[in-house]
Amino acid sequence: VEPDPALFSENERTTPRADERRAVHLPDFAFSDGSTMDVTIAYETWGTFRGDNAVLICHALSGDSHAIGWWDRLVGPGKAIDPARWFVIGTNALGGCQGSTGPATVVAGRRLGSRFPAVTVEDIALAMVQAVLEIGVERLALVAGGSMGGMVALEVARRMPTERVWVTASARAHGALQIGFNEAARQAIVRDPKWRGGDYPADDPPRHGLAVARMIGHLSYLSEASFERKFGRRRRESDVFEVESYLNYQGEKFTNRFDAGSLVALTRAIDAYECAELGPARYLFTSFTSDTLYPSHQLEELARMARGQGIDAEWHDIELPFGHDSFLLDGDRQGEIVRRWLGC
Amino acid sequence: VEPDPALFSENERTTPRADERRAVHLPDFAFSDGSTMDVTIAYETWGTFRGDNAVLICHALSGDSHAIGWWDRLVGPGKAIDPARWFVIGTNALGGCQGSTGPATVVAGRRLGSRFPAVTVEDIALAMVQAVLEIGVERLALVAGGSMGGMVALEVARRMPTERVWVTASARAHGALQIGFNEAARQAIVRDPKWRGGDYPADDPPRHGLAVARMIGHLSYLSEASFERKFGRRRRESDVFEVESYLNYQGEKFTNRFDAGSLVALTRAIDAYECAELGPARYLFTSFTSDTLYPSHQLEELARMARGQGIDAEWHDIELPFGHDSFLLDGDRQGEIVRRWLGC
Repeated sequence: VEPDPALFSENERTTPRADERRAVHLPDFAFSDGSTMDVTIAYETWGTFRGDNAVLICHALSGDSHAIGWWDRLVGPGKAIDPARWFVIGTNALGGCQGSTGPATVVAGRRLGSRFPAVTVEDIALAMVQAVLEIGVERLALVAGGSMGGMVALEVARRMPTERVWVTASARAHGALQIGFNEAARQAIVRDPKWRGGDYPADDPPRHGLAVARMIGHLSYLSEASFERKFGRRRRESDVFEVESYLNYQGEKFTNRFDAGSLVALTRAIDAYECAELGPARYLFTSFTSDTLYPSHQLEELARMARGQGIDAEWHDIELPFGHDSFLLDGDRQGEIVRRWLGC
Repeated sequence: VEPDPALFSENERTTPRADERRAVHLPDFAFSDGSTMDVTIAYETWGTFRGDNAVLICHALSGDSHAIGWWDRLVGPGKAIDPARWFVIGTNALGGCQGSTGPATVVAGRRLGSRFPAVTVEDIALAMVQAVLEIGVERLALVAGGSMGGMVALEVARRMPTERVWVTASARAHGALQIGFNEAARQAIVRDPKWRGGDYPADDPPRHGLAVARMIGHLSYLSEASFERKFGRRRRESDVFEVESYLNYQGEKFTNRFDAGSLVALTRAIDAYECAELGPARYLFTSFTSDTLYPSHQLEELARMARGQGIDAEWHDIELPFGHDSFLLDGDRQGEIVRRWLGC
């Protein structure tokens, strides 16, 4: 039974359409661990490039290049980031599984699996920058991202001329609880006997481990109040709580669109990440009072770091009850702040 | 590598000593689902029974009868509940795996497994009451418990004469996030191929599923601030965060002392539980401002419920940063409140 379509969560409304996707090939891409590999970065664009209006959108853990999809409350016609004014670029992160090279990429009939290098946030950003340059964009008016995407945005701004950076519901570095949630998710996957060191066949993945990993993720995406309002103690059948049905549905659905190897690789990347310094740009940081996964003090810390570097930065703490998912669900409050900050 | 012994969490310091344990046998015990079964309830006692000084301690999910062990900051010589004054009884819950009958009980060479009935909090309390009567105690001066134990205490007080009830870090009924954490833990277990419908051999249990289930539990026992203070981003080896090592250590260790079938049975019991009304007694409710698993408003709700029934009740919201584990870690604040409330 499908739950209410309104009950979506981190990026789940994403419906990438392959026919809209294009790709950039980067031969001999150099990973920070010293390895090199030919990689592909999938991307999509909206709007018309006019030299000074490029906006790069960086997705969260389970997202993809289809920004006007998973972030359509913020990006799209009539929204804060409108393709009528901006040339919007969405890419799929290196290490992901929606068109860019990652553990799920099949080479000579076999998934790369454990042969895919230990990717870092810095690698993801560098590949994104090289892809953007390849498209013909040499400077960004804005790079924006939430959650993992916020970390990637910070690193993009250190690697190419960037006017503005908007980071939402993200952090300079993960704290222990964030690493803990990711580690429990990773263990659910790597302890599934089908994981086989990451070298499972594409048609026989560790589905159960990946489903449990996704359920663990969902426990951190909503606030307690938000879980309560959505589900309370309502039951779907006589002995199944709606929240149980929801978590299992989310877990199962995720196994149809995501690769377990990508989840392990990308969570390791964001857990290891620590932003050393901010690139020269104007910064906007937004947080949500109910976000228990990326608490407000982490965005405040970024703003402090910016000021410590003498960099222009605003931090807005938004009072909304939807937990971490607020950054996806909230078009109004973030939209208003972003419009004002962009001066449009 | 063993982590700092100070880094313990929900009940992990428990070291039951079998030689101190005794057991009550309850023939043809009637479960609320209609089934009957001969069951055993393991118990321990401390102090001397003087007719009016019996105190029953109810353990949390992974606890046992060894109250002066997992709750030794509150119960023990010189503590708020001192065996010099009180006759302290600890039992292991029906459905548990530390001496009382549960899915792990071996009958004719086979674990009961799926043959163990769908136990409820009411069943657990009824078996506890019958065991206490069997010991020769007909009225309780106090029944106390935290987390799952708080729910059991509420039901004990409805089933035998009880003067006082102390419920800490617990709830009248689980909300959606609590059910969600438990469901993710259950799915980690039942999706382990070794689960086999609950009928696995005792020497080949779903260890990996149980380890992941325990890691999920630990994510909910500490607050974000508490995770941060304990672990931060410190690393144990060059590429392993201390928090990762801690969670894996806790998960592995748990598989040596706990049964996956018990975890599934007991979490189902507490998720289904809703306290309909309070038994006649004086109530003390304590909560912790940093407890995100059993938030303060759930204890406040119990106090409101008591007042609605015209029952004497106090609620104290304790400001401590240790999350849900505060109820185990805090001897001072709870101790002081309990002493004053008991008038000693």
